[in-house]
Amino acid sequence: MQERYSRRWFLSTSGLGLVGVALSGRSALTSQRGPAASPADPATIEDLVAGNRILAREQVLDAFGHISVRHPRNPDRYLLARSVAPGLVTADDIIEYDLDSKPIDDRGRASYRERFIHGEIYRSRRDVNAIVHCHTPSLLPFGVTKVPLRPMYHQSSWVAEGVPVFEIREAAGMTDMLIGDNRLGKALAGTLGAKPAALMRGHGAVVVGNSIPTVVGRSVYLDINARVQMQAMALGGPITYIDPEEAKKYAAPNNYDRAWELWKRQMTR
Amino acid sequence: MQERYSRRWFLSTSGLGLVGVALSGRSALTSQRGPAASPADPATIEDLVAGNRILAREQVLDAFGHISVRHPRNPDRYLLARSVAPGLVTADDIIEYDLDSKPIDDRGRASYRERFIHGEIYRSRRDVNAIVHCHTPSLLPFGVTKVPLRPMYHQSSWVAEGVPVFEIREAAGMTDMLIGDNRLGKALAGTLGAKPAALMRGHGAVVVGNSIPTVVGRSVYLDINARVQMQAMALGGPITYIDPEEAKKYAAPNNYDRAWELWKRQMTR
Amino acid sequence: MQERYSRRWFLSTSGLGLVGVALSGRSALTSQRGPAASPADPATIEDLVAGNRILAREQVLDAFGHISVRHPRNPDRYLLARSVAPGLVTADDIIEYDLDSKPIDDRGRASYRERFIHGEIYRSRRDVNAIVHCHTPSLLPFGVTKVPLRPMYHQSSWVAEGVPVFEIREAAGMTDMLIGDNRLGKALAGTLGAKPAALMRGHGAVVVGNSIPTVVGRSVYLDINARVQMQAMALGGPITYIDPEEAKKYAAPNNYDRAWELWKRQMTR
Amino acid sequence: MQERYSRRWFLSTSGLGLVGVALSGRSALTSQRGPAASPADPATIEDLVAGNRILAREQVLDAFGHISVRHPRNPDRYLLARSVAPGLVTADDIIEYDLDSKPIDDRGRASYRERFIHGEIYRSRRDVNAIVHCHTPSLLPFGVTKVPLRPMYHQSSWVAEGVPVFEIREAAGMTDMLIGDNRLGKALAGTLGAKPAALMRGHGAVVVGNSIPTVVGRSVYLDINARVQMQAMALGGPITYIDPEEAKKYAAPNNYDRAWELWKRQMTR
Repeated sequence: MQERYSRRWFLSTSGLGLVGVALSGRSALTSQRGPAASPADPATIEDLVAGNRILAREQVLDAFGHISVRHPRNPDRYLLARSVAPGLVTADDIIEYDLDSKPIDDRGRASYRERFIHGEIYRSRRDVNAIVHCHTPSLLPFGVTKVPLRPMYHQSSWVAEGVPVFEIREAAGMTDMLIGDNRLGKALAGTLGAKPAALMRGHGAVVVGNSIPTVVGRSVYLDINARVQMQAMALGGPITYIDPEEAKKYAAPNNYDRAWELWKRQMTR
Repeated sequence: MQERYSRRWFLSTSGLGLVGVALSGRSALTSQRGPAASPADPATIEDLVAGNRILAREQVLDAFGHISVRHPRNPDRYLLARSVAPGLVTADDIIEYDLDSKPIDDRGRASYRERFIHGEIYRSRRDVNAIVHCHTPSLLPFGVTKVPLRPMYHQSSWVAEGVPVFEIREAAGMTDMLIGDNRLGKALAGTLGAKPAALMRGHGAVVVGNSIPTVVGRSVYLDINARVQMQAMALGGPITYIDPEEAKKYAAPNNYDRAWELWKRQMTR
Repeated sequence: MQERYSRRWFLSTSGLGLVGVALSGRSALTSQRGPAASPADPATIEDLVAGNRILAREQVLDAFGHISVRHPRNPDRYLLARSVAPGLVTADDIIEYDLDSKPIDDRGRASYRERFIHGEIYRSRRDVNAIVHCHTPSLLPFGVTKVPLRPMYHQSSWVAEGVPVFEIREAAGMTDMLIGDNRLGKALAGTLGAKPAALMRGHGAVVVGNSIPTVVGRSVYLDINARVQMQAMALGGPITYIDPEEAKKYAAPNNYDRAWELWKRQMTR
Repeated sequence: MQERYSRRWFLSTSGLGLVGVALSGRSALTSQRGPAASPADPATIEDLVAGNRILAREQVLDAFGHISVRHPRNPDRYLLARSVAPGLVTADDIIEYDLDSKPIDDRGRASYRERFIHGEIYRSRRDVNAIVHCHTPSLLPFGVTKVPLRPMYHQSSWVAEGVPVFEIREAAGMTDMLIGDNRLGKALAGTLGAKPAALMRGHGAVVVGNSIPTVVGRSVYLDINARVQMQAMALGGPITYIDPEEAKKYAAPNNYDRAWELWKRQMTR
C-alpha cells in the first residue's frame, strides 16, 4: 500500500494551475525558505477551503478540528486556516506556517492552538501532503478502550495498515489534553510512525495522506468504518476483516476522486 | 414470491412512452443485437436517472455504487451511468452496454470498473430487469459475520427468500475486492442464484428486481431491515421473523409504488 | 389516566370553526347517517392534513402508514386520505368512511388497503377520535421479541398503561400480514382493548388518542421512548421506569400542544 | 475547574453593550429589586434568543425544555421565554422573573410550568449565570440506570466534576414528574450542589454555566459524551476516562467560543 504515498507531488484536483514539482527537486526549493511568505497557487487554496467545508458538511469536524496542506512549492511550509470553525473557512483565513508551526505572516489572525500536530508530522513524514485533525465521535470509543480499529470494507481498507493510539499521559503525564507545543507534536508523530492515521485517547484522531482529496476521503470513511465495526462486533461471533493483502491490492491514489467530485458539487449547491 | 419476478416486461412508471415488449418475443429482438446503440425510450432513461438520485437521497448509495436497467427493447443490453457519483447522474451520463459489459458507444465517457456485476446478472437472470450495487453501511456487518439477514417486517419480507453472502476469496483468493471482470461477475451471479439480493463480504451488496421501482424499494427497505434486525438481536431472546409463507402472500409487483411516487416528488422539490 | 380520553368532543387546534358536539348527543347524529357525505369543517381537514405532513417530517411515517380522525359531527364516520404517501396529502385527498370502512363518496380515488384498522377501532373505542397506523422502525424490535415497551420518561409516560402486541397468526394463521378486512380490524381492536397503543408483530403499530395533536404527539414520543429503552437496556442493570401513578398524575389532554404549535410552524416554513 | 465559574460577570458575546458589573457590587443592585421590570440590554436578549434557537437546531431541545440567563444588572432576577417551543422564541417572548420565579410583568404571556428550576438554582448558585433544562434522549438512559455519566473526551471533560441524578421520588414521592413549585426546585438545586449538571430520573437534565455560550456548549457536548460513552461501554473492557486533573487543566472560560460563533452564523443562514 506504500504506492499510495508516492513521492510525486500531488496534483490539485481543481484542474487550475497544477503544480507538478517533484520532491526530488526539493533541495532547490528549501533554499527559498525564509521569513517571506511564498503565496500558494489559488487552486491549492481553493482545495483547502473545500476540504474544510466538506469535512464540516460530512460531520467529520464540528466547530473544532482542522485540515492542512503542505505548501506545493516549499515542502518546509504548510497552509492552515486561522483559528475558526472549519465550516466558516474562506481563502482569506489561510495562514502559511513553517515546520516549527510559526506563522510566516499571520496579519494579526489567531492560530489554532494545536497547529503543532501539522508541523511535526510534515517534518517526520515527507510522503504526507495533507493532514486532518478531528474529534469525530465514532472514533472516540476506539481511543479509550483496548479495541483496535480494524478494516471493515474496501473503502476503508487502508485501516489494515494499523491505526495506533496516542496516549498523551505516556508523553507528558497529566496535561490539558492538547498538542500545544512542538514536543507534544513530535510525540504524536512518533506514535503515528508510518501509519495512515492515529487515534488520540480522550481527544480524537489524526489522519494523513498524500493529497487533500485522499485525506478527506480517509477521514469520511474512517468514520463509517468505526460505526460498522461497532455494529459487527455487537452482532457477535468471528468477523472477517479485510486482509492486509486485499488492502494492498485495492490501494490506489485516486480511490476517493469520485467522492471528491460529488462533495465539491454539494458544497456549492 | 416468484410471481414478483414476472416474465412480463416492466412498465416505466413515468407513464410516458411505455414499452410493453414481452420477453417471449426476445428472439426477434436479439437478432437486432450488434454494434449500433439502440436508443432507449426517454421514460426509461428518466426512471434510471430518478433511481440514481433517489438512492443517493435515501443514503443507500454515497458517492459510489450504481443502478442499472435492462434495455427495454433489447434484453441483451443494459443501461448504466458513466463513472460518476449517483447523486450527480443526468440523462447524458447513461451508456448502453452489451452483456459482456462492453460499452456500445461510450463517446469517451469512463465506465464503472464494476459494471461486470450487471452484465453477468442480466445474463444469468432473465427475470431481472434492474440491479443495484451498493455499499450501504448497515448491510456490511451481515457480510462479515456469520449472522444471516432475516426478514423483520412485511416491507422487507422478500428477505425470507434468503440473502446469500459472496466471499470473493473463494472465487479468486486475495484480490482488490472489486468485481473487475466477467469471471468475477459470473462468480457473484452464481452466489446470487435465484435470490433477490446477495451480500458481498467486506464490500457491500447487490439487489435485483423486475423493475427500477422494485429494486430501489428493495434497496431502501433492506437497509431498514438490517438496522431493525441489529436492534432486535440486541434486545435479546427469541425473535419472530416473517415466515416464508407470509412473505409469499405479501409479495406483489406494486408493493413499493406508493414510495416511488413520493421519492420522485421529493427529488424535484 | 383515563381522564385523558374524555368523552367531550375534541377541539380543532386551529381555532377556526370549533365543533363542540358532545357524544351524549350522538343518537341524533347517528340518525343522519346514510349514503350522503357530510362535509367536515375546514379546520378538521386542515388538522388532518397537518397530521399527515408532520408525521412524515418527523419520520414516524415514511411512504406508508396513515392517520385518521373521527368525523366531528358524525361519530359513525371517519376521515382518511386516499391511498397516497402521507407526506403528499392535501385536503383534496381526504375521503369520508363509515365504520365498515366503506367510502361514502370516493370519487374514484383509491382507498388504503388497511383502512379497516380505523373503522373497527372507532367502533370499539368511543373515546378515541384519532388513530395513527405506522411502521416506525424503532418500534419493530419490540413487536418481534418478548421485550415489552416500558415508559422511560414523562413525555411518553402513557406507555405505563401498557402496549400489547398483536400477533396476526393467532387471529388468522399465515396471512399477507395486512389488516385487509373488518374481521382482522376487529381482532386488532380486540388486542388494543382500552390501551393507548398496540404493536403489530412484523408490521408496525397503531396509536390512538382523543385528538389529532394527541395521537401525533404520542406517535412521535413513542418512537423516542423505544430508542431510549433500547439504549438503557444496553447499559445494563436495573432500570427505574415511570410508575403508573406518576403516569396518571402527569396525564393531561394538552401535554403535546406546545409541540403541535411548533410542528405546524415548521410545516409551513 | 472552579476557575471556570468565575465571579466576574459574564460578557455578552455579541460585542454590543457589554455589561461588566462585578457581583461584589451586588448590594447596590439588589436594592433596586422591586416590582418594576428592569429591561435587560439588547445584547443579552439577543444571546438568549440565539441560545434557544441553537439548542433547537442542535436537537438538544425539541418542542420542550428551556434556557435562561441571570439578569446582567440584577442578580436577583432572571430572563426566560414565555411558554413556547425554543425553536420559535423571539425577543418579544422574553419575560423577567424574580428568584421566586414570579414574573415581573408577563403582559398576559403564559410561563413555563417548570420555571422554578431556574429560580432556585440562581438562588443557590451565585456563580451560575445561565441554565438549560433539557430532555435530550441520549441523557435519559443514564438517569434511569445505575451507570454514571463519565468524561469521554476533552470537549466534555467537565463531566469529571460529576453529574448527580435527581430522584424526585426521594423529594416528594409519586408526582407528575415536573418541577412545578419552589420546593421541588430547591430539592433539585440541592442535588445539583456545586456540580455543572444533574440528570433528572425519567425526565431529563439541568446544565449550568457562567454564560450562555458555556451552557449551550456544555449541553451540546454532554449529548455527544453520552452517546460516545454508550458506544465505548458496548465495545467492552476497561475504559480510560478523562482524569479529574486533566479536566481541571483543560478548563477555560472560552472553550466553546469557536462553536458559539459557528452556531450563531448557522442560525442566520
